[in-house]
Amino acid sequence: MKLATLKDGSRDGRLVVVSRDLSRAVHADGIATTLLDAVERWSQTQPQLAALSERLNAGAVPDSFAFDASQAAAPLPRAPQWCDGSAFLNHGQLMQQAFHLEPMPDADTVPLMYQGGSDDMLGGCDDVPLPSEAHGIDFEGEFGVIVGDVPMGCSARGARSRILLLVQLNDVSLRAMAPFEMKRGFGFFHAKPSTSFASVAVTPDEIGEAWRDCRVHLDLAIDLNGQWFGNPNGGEMHFGFDELVAHAALTRRLSAGTIIGSGTVSNAGGAKGSACITERRAIETIQHGAPRTPFMRFGDRVRMEARCDGAPVFGAIDQRVVPAPPPQE
Amino acid sequence: MKLATLKDGSRDGRLVVVSRDLSRAVHADGIATTLLDAVERWSQTQPQLAALSERLNAGAVPDSFAFDASQAAAPLPRAPQWCDGSAFLNHGQLMQQAFHLEPMPDADTVPLMYQGGSDDMLGGCDDVPLPSEAHGIDFEGEFGVIVGDVPMGCSARGARSRILLLVQLNDVSLRAMAPFEMKRGFGFFHAKPSTSFASVAVTPDEIGEAWRDCRVHLDLAIDLNGQWFGNPNGGEMHFGFDELVAHAALTRRLSAGTIIGSGTVSNAGGAKGSACITERRAIETIQHGAPRTPFMRFGDRVRMEARCDGAPVFGAIDQRVVPAPPPQE
Repeated sequence: MKLATLKDGSRDGRLVVVSRDLSRAVHADGIATTLLDAVERWSQTQPQLAALSERLNAGAVPDSFAFDASQAAAPLPRAPQWCDGSAFLNHGQLMQQAFHLEPMPDADTVPLMYQGGSDDMLGGCDDVPLPSEAHGIDFEGEFGVIVGDVPMGCSARGARSRILLLVQLNDVSLRAMAPFEMKRGFGFFHAKPSTSFASVAVTPDEIGEAWRDCRVHLDLAIDLNGQWFGNPNGGEMHFGFDELVAHAALTRRLSAGTIIGSGTVSNAGGAKGSACITERRAIETIQHGAPRTPFMRFGDRVRMEARCDGAPVFGAIDQRVVPAPPPQE
Repeated sequence: MKLATLKDGSRDGRLVVVSRDLSRAVHADGIATTLLDAVERWSQTQPQLAALSERLNAGAVPDSFAFDASQAAAPLPRAPQWCDGSAFLNHGQLMQQAFHLEPMPDADTVPLMYQGGSDDMLGGCDDVPLPSEAHGIDFEGEFGVIVGDVPMGCSARGARSRILLLVQLNDVSLRAMAPFEMKRGFGFFHAKPSTSFASVAVTPDEIGEAWRDCRVHLDLAIDLNGQWFGNPNGGEMHFGFDELVAHAALTRRLSAGTIIGSGTVSNAGGAKGSACITERRAIETIQHGAPRTPFMRFGDRVRMEARCDGAPVFGAIDQRVVPAPPPQE
C-alpha cells in the first residue's frame, strides 16, 4: 500500500492512496482525512486503505485521478515527532578520520540520534528556503520509518510491529552551524532546518525482500545538478530501524506518527559515492588534504530516488535550495 | 484571558476558558475545539475567546462549571514544536564552576537552546512515568511562551507580537544521561523525557507589569516533598523571550503552537534557592566539595507555582515521579 498527502491549503493536507506505479491516486475519503489520522487509528484504517489500494491497482476505482508528485506535501507535513539516527557507521568514521574528531563513544553499541523539529516538513518537490549560502548548505539522503504508538521501554523486538510505513527523506543540514552547536553540547538546532520527504510513504511489503532485518536494502540514487553523486545501499545500517525505535523509546512514549530516520546512507569502500556533500568532502580531505566539492548554492538542485527492481517506490525528491523570503514583520 | 485543555480521551483534549481565579471554566465550543486550533486561527479566535472570558469573569456564563486542574492536560498535549532555551546564565555558570566544565562559547551573546520532543506533554498534576531512578531524575522549573506562526528570519522585535500565551512548566531531566549525550555532540535525547505543564496558559496581560521586557517577572516557588526548594524570579533571564523566539526562527519557520522555554529559572546570590536539583548540587559541590541533595526517587513529589500579587496565575504543577509500567509487547 502506498499513501501520500496532497496539498489542500490546510496544515496537514489530504490523504490519498497511490497506485503501485505512482500513476494514479484516490482520496481516502470516509477512511481517514489525513495520514496522521490514519496512523493514529491504524488497526481500523489499514484494512480499509489496503482494500482501496487493491481496487486502485486493479484499475477498479472510477474516481481515481493522475497522481502529481509536485502537488504532494510531505506524507506527514506536521509529524508529532522526528528523531534522526546516524546508523551508518561508515559515515561517522569518515568524518572522524578527515576532520580529526574525537572518537564517538560507544558508536557501535549505542545508536546516535538527535531530536529534530517536526512542525514544518517539506514536500519532495518543494523548494527549500534557507537564509544564507554561508551556512554550508548540504543534503542528507536517508530512509525512515513512521511508527504507531510505541510504549516507553519497548524492545527492538516489540518495535517491529510498530513500524507502519517506510519513507525516503532529505535531512537538509547547515554544516557551518554544526561544529559550534555540537561543541556547546545542546545538539543541532540551527544546523537542522526543515526536512523534506519523497511524496509517497509505503508499507514495508511494497518492497518485498528488500525489507529485511528492519533495513531498507535499496540503493538510494543521488544526483546533484544532474550529475551522479552516489547510490549507496540502505542495507548497510549498523542498527536496524527496530533498534532505533527502541532507542528512541527508552525514556519516552512515541506517539503515532513519530518518524525515525536512518541517518545519511553511507557505504564503505567508496565505489557507491555519498548521500551528502560533507561525506564527499571528508573523502577528498583524506585523499587530497583538502575538500574540493563546494556546499550548495542557491539554485542548486538535488535529486534522490530509490527504485525496487527498476520500479519507483517513494517517488523522487527533486528540489532546489532557494533564498528564504524576507520575513513580514 | 486564561485557557486550559481538559482531558476528554482524545489526543489533543478539549479547550476551555478559565476564570481569572481558576475557579470556573467553560467549554470554548463554537470558537475552537482545541488550544492548537485556537492559536492557529488566533486573529479569529482571540476576540471571541476574550469575550467569553470577560463574561465568565463577570459570572455571566450559566453553563460554566468548577475548574478541576487535576482533570487538565498540558495546554498543548501535542505541540507542533518544543524548543527550550537556557537563558539564565547564573545556572550555567554554577554548573561550570562546580563540575569544571569548559566555558560555554558565546554564552552571553548567543542563546543556548535544544530541540525537545513535543508529542507527549504531561499535565501538571499527572504522574511522571520514568524507567529508572538510576537515571538521575530531576525537575527544572521554567516559564515559556506559545507563539503563533513565526516566519524564518524573524527579528526579536518582530517576535514580540507573535508571543500569544505564557506557560509554566517542568522540564523533567535525567541527569545521568546528559553528560554522555552532550559529549557525543548530538544533544539531549534520553536526558529529556516528556515535559509537564501547569494547567493554565495565560495571555501576557494577565500578569500586568510582571510581563515586561519579554520576561516573566514572577517568583517561581518550588517545593520538593513539601519542603521549600527555591523561589527564583523569572525576570533575571539574560535573553528575553523575544530574543529566544528570534533565535529559534533563524533557519526555520515556527508553526503556530510552538513552545519556547526559558530554561531553569535561576538567580545569582543563592538566597532564592534553585529550580532544579542539579543546581543545588552544584552549589553544594562548590561549598562543601561534594553534592548532598540526592536526585528524585519514585514517589517523590515536586510542586511549582508562580503567583502574581498573591493570586494564582497558571495553577500549580504538583506531581510525583513513578516507575513506568512495563511495555505491552
